[in-house]
Amino acid sequence: MKQKPCIAVVLADWERKEFLPSQERAALEEVSGKLVEAFPTDFADGAAFGDWLAKTGAEILVSCWMAPKLPEDLAERAPGLRYVCHLAGSVKGIVSEDHLKAGLLVTNWGNAIARTVAECGLMLAIAALRRVSHWTVQMHFHGGWKERTNTGTGSLFERRVGLHGFGAISRELAQLLRPFNVEVSTYSPSVPDQLLAEYKVRRAGTLEELFAENDVIIELAALTPKNRGIVTEELLRSIPEGGVFVNIGRGAVVDEAALARVARDGHIQVALDVYGTEPLPEDAEFRGMTNVLLLPHLAGPTVDRRRDATRFGIENIRRYLRDEELESLITAEVYQRST
Amino acid sequence: MKQKPCIAVVLADWERKEFLPSQERAALEEVSGKLVEAFPTDFADGAAFGDWLAKTGAEILVSCWMAPKLPEDLAERAPGLRYVCHLAGSVKGIVSEDHLKAGLLVTNWGNAIARTVAECGLMLAIAALRRVSHWTVQMHFHGGWKERTNTGTGSLFERRVGLHGFGAISRELAQLLRPFNVEVSTYSPSVPDQLLAEYKVRRAGTLEELFAENDVIIELAALTPKNRGIVTEELLRSIPEGGVFVNIGRGAVVDEAALARVARDGHIQVALDVYGTEPLPEDAEFRGMTNVLLLPHLAGPTVDRRRDATRFGIENIRRYLRDEELESLITAEVYQRST
Repeated sequence: MKQKPCIAVVLADWERKEFLPSQERAALEEVSGKLVEAFPTDFADGAAFGDWLAKTGAEILVSCWMAPKLPEDLAERAPGLRYVCHLAGSVKGIVSEDHLKAGLLVTNWGNAIARTVAECGLMLAIAALRRVSHWTVQMHFHGGWKERTNTGTGSLFERRVGLHGFGAISRELAQLLRPFNVEVSTYSPSVPDQLLAEYKVRRAGTLEELFAENDVIIELAALTPKNRGIVTEELLRSIPEGGVFVNIGRGAVVDEAALARVARDGHIQVALDVYGTEPLPEDAEFRGMTNVLLLPHLAGPTVDRRRDATRFGIENIRRYLRDEELESLITAEVYQRST
Repeated sequence: MKQKPCIAVVLADWERKEFLPSQERAALEEVSGKLVEAFPTDFADGAAFGDWLAKTGAEILVSCWMAPKLPEDLAERAPGLRYVCHLAGSVKGIVSEDHLKAGLLVTNWGNAIARTVAECGLMLAIAALRRVSHWTVQMHFHGGWKERTNTGTGSLFERRVGLHGFGAISRELAQLLRPFNVEVSTYSPSVPDQLLAEYKVRRAGTLEELFAENDVIIELAALTPKNRGIVTEELLRSIPEGGVFVNIGRGAVVDEAALARVARDGHIQVALDVYGTEPLPEDAEFRGMTNVLLLPHLAGPTVDRRRDATRFGIENIRRYLRDEELESLITAEVYQRST
């Protein structure tokens, strides 16, 4: 076990409230020899940030969305800094590929947020089947009420659910779906059979099969170059009548113009949390199409569960102190691949 | 086992599609000696309906929402009719208390629809925590997008959930909630300890405790005279800041004017499927309050799961044929109590 290091925490005021409530702060103090804090706005530039880190003697930096970019000459300026424990997802705003190549350890929130994204996906699937977007607009703005035969509602029970991609979020979702007695399939060529067996998920042979043979499609494929625009108009039109398309993964995996055309025809319900361009442009076609439930990319960690990312980070700091391998380590290769 | 009886099916065209898809029709034919069918609109009045039943020799009538009222002199007019297997909830539109007193057997959909109501409750709880109503309106009509600090989202994971009432829907909900690692309490004085232990649900000592000590309240209390308006302003104001109130039970259990005041203050999120007056009046205060998610009473059986009610009914017909006790038998006492 290493000696407890000096840990520098550079979080905005609101990030402290959300990521470091009292319990998590206490846990962080427990693994720190000394805890020093600054606000991102304390630093005029990366050089000033680096000098402050050197002055504090920090070995670990805990950062989040608002942190300034580390200086390119970090190794000379603050040679004591060994590990950036980033509490959010993308690290591109704070470290460069060269930092990683120079041996700086960097981790992010890894899979700590997967269950909240999965939860949002479950909710959106049920909400789309119930036409919540349509009814919200009808009830609030048109004095609406149902008639005997116009609810058009469906249930998730006994349905066939297709997950495009089988990463951490899909695995969490498979667990949330279990009480609904659904048949879950996935299209994810690289995932091993054993993992699918463990989660009782069937493998779809092709993406075409996944879309045509499920009532509810939940889009969770990674945005690799190969996956960009892979969800075509043909695939979307093959979803059975009354089916549902939910995207909680990456917007650019979908041909959005095609999705807008298919949604306009009204044969399927759609729920989107992510878009090819974010923020979603004000004149985006989806706006006003009330069979499309729209959220502004908030499936990821809800405010109350941001502490899960901190807990994950503190576990990584413990691993660092025990000289163990870190989880969700950002290598130069991961860095290049990330969006 | 009795001889297979003549079964009369009196359903509207759309009811046949929803309650009698091919699989359920085949199952019904299997328990019938003879199956005769008519549309509710075939009968000018109850007398004509009774005469037709007598002519067909029906021993069992399968009815639903659109069925006409049976004539008061049913016992003389169609003495062969022994059992009304009603596929929907309320039977007041088709039989009178005197029919029950005269020995007519009547059942309804019982708990067959409980899981779809529970599913809607789960969705509404997550949707309210995510402010889906607010974001739907923002995204569709105001070109909206989130800012860093304004999503105001919460998750169901690790929360304290309070169920007011512990009937069939609450029991289904307890199962759907299990993967979320929540602490579930209930206020339901008459429910035995053993049942709560079976579902791992804690008993709240008072209604005050239920509301003040849970983040998510799901209203499912029966509308008894004692429960009318039992959810007061004081109770609603005791829900912790950022909490959620979901009503999928009965609107009149809640003081709705108080709920509108509390919702307007914005400290809690609200999701409603039921109202004291239905259809919800066009000028109802809730309309336009976008932190209140509004649905037009559609938690109950979704179109695709109406067949569950038919399956339940056919099971009851099988019991009838074996001279066994029927499930969800409507006695004169149940009839008086029902809303």
